[in-house]
Amino acid sequence: MAKATQLIDNEVFRAYATYTAIVLLKMMLMSLITAYFRITRKAFVNPEDTASFGKGESAKKYLRTDPDVERVRRGHLNDLENIVPFVGIGLLYALSGPELSTALLHFRIFTGARILHTFAYLIPLPQPGRGLSWAVGYSVTFSMAYKVLKTAWLL
Amino acid sequence: MAKATQLIDNEVFRAYATYTAIVLLKMMLMSLITAYFRITRKAFVNPEDTASFGKGESAKKYLRTDPDVERVRRGHLNDLENIVPFVGIGLLYALSGPELSTALLHFRIFTGARILHTFAYLIPLPQPGRGLSWAVGYSVTFSMAYKVLKTAWLL
Amino acid sequence: MAKATQLIDNEVFRAYATYTAIVLLKMMLMSLITAYFRITRKAFVNPEDTASFGKGESAKKYLRTDPDVERVRRGHLNDLENIVPFVGIGLLYALSGPELSTALLHFRIFTGARILHTFAYLIPLPQPGRGLSWAVGYSVTFSMAYKVLKTAWLL
Repeated sequence: MAKATQLIDNEVFRAYATYTAIVLLKMMLMSLITAYFRITRKAFVNPEDTASFGKGESAKKYLRTDPDVERVRRGHLNDLENIVPFVGIGLLYALSGPELSTALLHFRIFTGARILHTFAYLIPLPQPGRGLSWAVGYSVTFSMAYKVLKTAWLL
Repeated sequence: MAKATQLIDNEVFRAYATYTAIVLLKMMLMSLITAYFRITRKAFVNPEDTASFGKGESAKKYLRTDPDVERVRRGHLNDLENIVPFVGIGLLYALSGPELSTALLHFRIFTGARILHTFAYLIPLPQPGRGLSWAVGYSVTFSMAYKVLKTAWLL
Repeated sequence: MAKATQLIDNEVFRAYATYTAIVLLKMMLMSLITAYFRITRKAFVNPEDTASFGKGESAKKYLRTDPDVERVRRGHLNDLENIVPFVGIGLLYALSGPELSTALLHFRIFTGARILHTFAYLIPLPQPGRGLSWAVGYSVTFSMAYKVLKTAWLL
């Protein structure tokens, strides 16, 4: 039987696994922050979620949008749009045989940029704070995609 | 040439492949349910989708939101937010050398929880049905991430 | 230490890497198109994004939705809903030992269908242009999932 653990023995793959787990956990955190704002702002979208506040009109008034909730949700969607390409392209990049130091540089910058992006979105910081942190993460993924296509190219 | 099939010979990886294919197919099913409700409720968002209903005002009235359509779409987005981390972290987990029985426990509980979540969202079941099924899936992914970080840690 | 590059030596895996990088880059392009329409249509969602247009009411009028922006965003979300299953199931499929020619057929049709889908959404083309390109990509992912489940099945 093949040893599935052999990939995890590779240092570049271990670095990929560490940073991917971190950014995916960061993305999952957005669900908890959304729930926190929904509960503290009393702003829900599903009627069954407001049942504990009473029946009829008294519960219906909590079916509303709240600026803070919507802000976290936009941050969450932006994570999906950017972290999904990182996870997919990053896996292929990690398997394309990069130097460990180069790979670490990519993974660290991306992870730092996405954490900054979340703070920039939620505080919120004045622009171009959010825009720049987005662009840095985007560029790192683009750079990894270039290496993948150069190494693997088979159309 | 390397045998790409060697990973698929590993039992933990086979279990991961099976459950990942199942939850991703379940997520894809949400597109069909959305289309079903859009057509039966006659609630569309793109003007070109209502062209077959005639021109001008007679078609325009079908450009509207419908509670059932929006409900399925929220379930679909919740799948993306939770199944993407499962697929990414689950792959790393499967490669981190867990016991087959422990891995199966994780994959089965997650898959069951997400199927329950879909039913809880679409029927809908009273809370905390949906909330609990969400929390169970979330916790399983968290548990796998812990194992990945413990095994692979290289920052 | 294991050679992580051995997977990338496999031709099916190289084809998977090439097409996955292409479709993920295509998906990332949607962010740039959204930004382009937000700036040219002056339609923003975050107050901090309109600060450069002045203060108070003069900036507030740019916090609005625009049909072109919303259209690109729907295309982007549709990409997430369809490209995520392709990337996840496609990886398992590439590792399940398919013939190179069969694998290439799947990857090429999916990639072509998703590029067509984007054009059909953004131009927009009359239906069933967008619907058909969506269905073709969906079917390819379904076909790969069938092969994965047949090869890997361990429940």
